[in-house]
Amino acid sequence: MKTLVIGGCGFIGSHVVDRLRARGHSVKVLDRQPERFRPPVEGVEYLVGDFSDQMVLIEALAGVEAVLHLAGTTVPGTADLNPALDVQGNLIGTLGLLDAMSRVGVSRLLFLSSGGTVYGRPDQVPIPETHPLRPINSYGIVKVAIEHYLDLYGRTRGLSPVTIRASNPYGPRQGHAGVQGVISTFLTRLRQNEPIEIWGDGSVVRDYVYVTELADLCARAVATDRTGPYNAGSGQGTSLNEIIAILHAVTGRDIAPLYRPGRALDVCESILDVSRAKADFGWESTIPLREGVRATYEWMAQAG
Amino acid sequence: MKTLVIGGCGFIGSHVVDRLRARGHSVKVLDRQPERFRPPVEGVEYLVGDFSDQMVLIEALAGVEAVLHLAGTTVPGTADLNPALDVQGNLIGTLGLLDAMSRVGVSRLLFLSSGGTVYGRPDQVPIPETHPLRPINSYGIVKVAIEHYLDLYGRTRGLSPVTIRASNPYGPRQGHAGVQGVISTFLTRLRQNEPIEIWGDGSVVRDYVYVTELADLCARAVATDRTGPYNAGSGQGTSLNEIIAILHAVTGRDIAPLYRPGRALDVCESILDVSRAKADFGWESTIPLREGVRATYEWMAQAG
Repeated sequence: MKTLVIGGCGFIGSHVVDRLRARGHSVKVLDRQPERFRPPVEGVEYLVGDFSDQMVLIEALAGVEAVLHLAGTTVPGTADLNPALDVQGNLIGTLGLLDAMSRVGVSRLLFLSSGGTVYGRPDQVPIPETHPLRPINSYGIVKVAIEHYLDLYGRTRGLSPVTIRASNPYGPRQGHAGVQGVISTFLTRLRQNEPIEIWGDGSVVRDYVYVTELADLCARAVATDRTGPYNAGSGQGTSLNEIIAILHAVTGRDIAPLYRPGRALDVCESILDVSRAKADFGWESTIPLREGVRATYEWMAQAG
Repeated sequence: MKTLVIGGCGFIGSHVVDRLRARGHSVKVLDRQPERFRPPVEGVEYLVGDFSDQMVLIEALAGVEAVLHLAGTTVPGTADLNPALDVQGNLIGTLGLLDAMSRVGVSRLLFLSSGGTVYGRPDQVPIPETHPLRPINSYGIVKVAIEHYLDLYGRTRGLSPVTIRASNPYGPRQGHAGVQGVISTFLTRLRQNEPIEIWGDGSVVRDYVYVTELADLCARAVATDRTGPYNAGSGQGTSLNEIIAILHAVTGRDIAPLYRPGRALDVCESILDVSRAKADFGWESTIPLREGVRATYEWMAQAG
């Protein structure tokens, strides 16, 4: 299948490119910049540009059978600082993509949503896809609006959209800037002999998924005709304090986190029910967190 | 209380102005155009301008204690034609309002949302405010996103937002362009001896609320410190065929509607549970539909 990966040079996107290639699909990438941690992948066609530019988009869509939309102009921690920018970049940008796709007749779309933010404070864990969407930050609000539009375009404009609601992905090629994920951030700080800060008492529970497994789900799902939302996580909850214990076991370093006053707005526990992805795609996450953290740590040592 | 009514020259806005005045509040109006059906109301300060213009907004907010945001750049029937425009005008515009309010320190906000579109296809009728928000058109998607942002700004930026989720308002001063409401549209067509068209078999059930009653709820709610969503409807369901029967009774005219193939996307039955507004504001709709329709018909005859 001929695929276009928008955001294919990012953390998750680069792994999705790998998994698509491994499954025999041809891959075109549209991104604003090249991959950060490795040279261009042989056999992949790279287009440099902004997906919110209609001319760029129309050119990128030529000859394509399916689009994987993994581009994001914000991350959860920063979107709240300027919601209008978040809406402009991500929501209006995505509407432009939907319009362009329906105009040129490309119907299949995989959208990467956020299982960690679309549900807000869950009524139950693990959280099924049918749980009400009550996002409590701008990142989640925009993801929910996009999902609603996917549904609308699916019903009225011939689009065939499938949504992957990822939990907290981690693994090689994740940025270390401190905004993208605690595992990469903590590992980086350990390597630099800097203290690890934890907001709250470390009891906050999240669902962490190794990025290659998430990417594999994307590559599988886009090649089907299934539509609607699919949670993508490990189905397991891990507290920050448990993460610290794993980091200690993997790195052999003693860690004394600095506990800072907690952010009252945080969701205490987020674990995804991933049975739908298992039932429809035969997919499940099997890499234990400790192994994934070890692989990430080894990649960091190698990447320098 | 010193109030600013954004969209105060519109159909609902003009009635809200009346109710605020009747309750002794001072009223400033910001709208892009003057009222269509009557001269400026004495004692009301009118500002002509677009609420998405920050300079206009800052000026309008001077000296104000509460804002009623009733402005809309789209209606349900047309928003789907250009969702990006809908998002730009209504969502980004409203984010600008929220930012301006938190910047100048005006915290109280009443937002007019849409009880007919935010819920999508309801699991139950009458629909309580706690029902999941699953909008199926752009108008509803944008209203939901705005409600999520109101919640966010309420938690993080000191705003005190209350939301009125109106069902289908009707009454004097509603536009007759055929996009704003079936009662005004049908009455206008009757007066012009034009045929009445019904999409589907006329069994579609909606909750109609007389505009002065809706406006009264807005005037009451904004003067409290209650936050969150409130349904505003009659709590009664009326089918299109029942509307036709009422129109016949009120106008004395024989009506033979032209039944057109139904739009599959329509929600079959939408009736709001209005017990929360009754409990918190002592509000309920008491004007029977037949009386409201009669008053609307008489107003039309008078307005010419």
